[in-house]
Amino acid sequence: MNAEIITIGDEILIGQIVDTNSQFIGQQLNKIGVSVYQVTSIQDDKQHILNALKEAQERVDIVILTGGLGPTKDDITKKTIATYFKDDEVVEYPEVIAHIKALFKKINHPFKEIQKTQAQLPSKATLLMNTFGTAPGMWFFENETVFVSLPGVPYEMKGLIVNEVLPRIQKQYQLPYIFHKTIMTYGAGESTIAETLEHFEDNLPSYIKLAYLPSFGKVRLRLSAKGTDRELLEKELTSKVDEVYKLIPEFITGLDDDNSLEKRVGELLTKNKKTLATAESLTGGKIAATLVAVPGSSSYYKGSIVAYSEEAKINLLDVSAEIIKEHSVVSKQVALAMAKGLKNKLKTDFAVAVTGNAGPTQDKTDKSVGVVFIAFVSDNEKFVREFDFGQPREKVINRTVSKALEILQKEIL
Amino acid sequence: MNAEIITIGDEILIGQIVDTNSQFIGQQLNKIGVSVYQVTSIQDDKQHILNALKEAQERVDIVILTGGLGPTKDDITKKTIATYFKDDEVVEYPEVIAHIKALFKKINHPFKEIQKTQAQLPSKATLLMNTFGTAPGMWFFENETVFVSLPGVPYEMKGLIVNEVLPRIQKQYQLPYIFHKTIMTYGAGESTIAETLEHFEDNLPSYIKLAYLPSFGKVRLRLSAKGTDRELLEKELTSKVDEVYKLIPEFITGLDDDNSLEKRVGELLTKNKKTLATAESLTGGKIAATLVAVPGSSSYYKGSIVAYSEEAKINLLDVSAEIIKEHSVVSKQVALAMAKGLKNKLKTDFAVAVTGNAGPTQDKTDKSVGVVFIAFVSDNEKFVREFDFGQPREKVINRTVSKALEILQKEIL
Repeated sequence: MNAEIITIGDEILIGQIVDTNSQFIGQQLNKIGVSVYQVTSIQDDKQHILNALKEAQERVDIVILTGGLGPTKDDITKKTIATYFKDDEVVEYPEVIAHIKALFKKINHPFKEIQKTQAQLPSKATLLMNTFGTAPGMWFFENETVFVSLPGVPYEMKGLIVNEVLPRIQKQYQLPYIFHKTIMTYGAGESTIAETLEHFEDNLPSYIKLAYLPSFGKVRLRLSAKGTDRELLEKELTSKVDEVYKLIPEFITGLDDDNSLEKRVGELLTKNKKTLATAESLTGGKIAATLVAVPGSSSYYKGSIVAYSEEAKINLLDVSAEIIKEHSVVSKQVALAMAKGLKNKLKTDFAVAVTGNAGPTQDKTDKSVGVVFIAFVSDNEKFVREFDFGQPREKVINRTVSKALEILQKEIL
Repeated sequence: MNAEIITIGDEILIGQIVDTNSQFIGQQLNKIGVSVYQVTSIQDDKQHILNALKEAQERVDIVILTGGLGPTKDDITKKTIATYFKDDEVVEYPEVIAHIKALFKKINHPFKEIQKTQAQLPSKATLLMNTFGTAPGMWFFENETVFVSLPGVPYEMKGLIVNEVLPRIQKQYQLPYIFHKTIMTYGAGESTIAETLEHFEDNLPSYIKLAYLPSFGKVRLRLSAKGTDRELLEKELTSKVDEVYKLIPEFITGLDDDNSLEKRVGELLTKNKKTLATAESLTGGKIAATLVAVPGSSSYYKGSIVAYSEEAKINLLDVSAEIIKEHSVVSKQVALAMAKGLKNKLKTDFAVAVTGNAGPTQDKTDKSVGVVFIAFVSDNEKFVREFDFGQPREKVINRTVSKALEILQKEIL
């Protein structure tokens, strides 16, 4: 089964927000064996919505719309959907009014007349009740196609996808299995790997696909298998991963089933019962945010100090003012002092500190833009590595984050 | 002029990455007066790319593709574009080979035969040289339509958009002006505001549009104007903003031209020559990351302590173990102690600290899921506020971040 995700809202098209809804829906559909054929972001405009529905219906079996279900005038999705289904009508659903009144009572919010528009939905809709908000989702099955319309607020949409939409799709269709395995590599460019894997790739069976995902010094290789025979797919995928391991052993850093170095760091720390803290300058908390995004991180991750200023380095990490004066904030010495100070303060098993110049200007240092120092300290070991991540700023910051995580993973192993 | 952005890559459709490229391109096109009509994310598949190009050409004047320009087999964009333009051929561009060789020499990387595929491009392409990578962008003008193909690596794409694509579009077309003004409101739901603004909205001129963007307790109202008379548009937009100010004065917290409370906090701090630090528990660095994302933040933002664990609260923020034991980590007392400890350590003018229970479980506290304490300390003032942000986890964290920034803005004012 193929799906298309249609996200409605001018705010996506003018770049006011980034569309994370379609990413979540794509992941969830994949897990139950539905392939996403296309994601289409369109305007809050009747004709545009009608065109998109028609085109999607020609392309796929399942059409999922998000956005455009609020009570205000720029939200025209409901009426447009009614028009699309052979001039269906919008009718008032009393159960939705009861739901909104109950929700509002809980937060002491008066119920107003305009709220009734939230309960006016196409008569052909199967309602999907929204635990976290007022606008219900809708499910339609018309002309052998599933249409689902969901509110655009991310946590409302997520609740509806997981609790209502996925079980209904699984009930409606006999679904194949889709599996992905992602192999992480480091130290070789996309082209070098591709050259070595050319013969392997040419001989892949039709139900297995290989994709290259280069980013910031790493290349991830994704093998995807799709079919109805679960055992065969899993066996074949495992054997293809083994083949890749044999072909480029020197570049592989591990398997990465959900694309996350930080998760592996977390697993290693949990397994070895070790703790970690980080101190960041140029990355401004991005290493912390990456580590904390892993559920359960509070058991091994003890905290982070974002020491943006000299004062913070001195007062929070006990870096001496003399070292900064002598070597500048971007230096081997300061990176090491930050890591030592951090470990000492937080009594963790491991501490990582980064300082560098992300640019665009040189600031208070003699080091050129792109130069970064990463320090690692454990009970038995301490070292600092120097890198030149070039330009632009975004690249320097991102490479620092992934390099720090890589160093951590290696050292904990 | 209308544009469509086509992002190519299965990694977007399976939700392995989130498509931030189209957000950036949308923002940049809007600034020069180009409206983005649609964003379409498609598979690395020849027929799918051909279909998408054809459909886009029927809809818009400018088609911008990103992704699919690497040297490996899953990148088939170049050959497909050549096919699309009346069977154009792929030819080798010696200047691209020279560029790749020069880039590789800089980083001591050997040039391999497979790299030559990067230089094989449709013969009708105008090359857009890529300062930050090996794959050049391409510009075509065929059948009164501009086609641009760019690499998918974000910083390479950004460099090409800003330096090459925007100037060429401005040269090619007479462009209108597009202006947005976003009014921030707080304390009223979408429907309440819509009821009050109904008459205002009905009487807007055809070239001005109003949109509602609800998120986490706030509603942003975006007024967009598009036309050729710059002065008229700016005057009308300002006058419409004034009208909204008169209609709902009690709910407006300010104008938000680029949608960022953190930027206003930064401006206020810079103007008043004040400094700030933050201490975070449940938000895990998200307040820091939000503040640091503002260019120039290092002049007023002194740092952040992500005190995830009890030890961090005790060792880094001097919160006493007794207070934690008596009141639990999620308490008025601990929030205030965190803010005081922070201000004392970093000698800033303002300090904000947050602690709370984002769920899903209750952890080591007697407070229920959703309860958050935000403490603010300055030289003259200190207070703690208690909130119940409900569920789910994502909502609790996001509302804590925006509430902390709101409190800051108000207090600095």
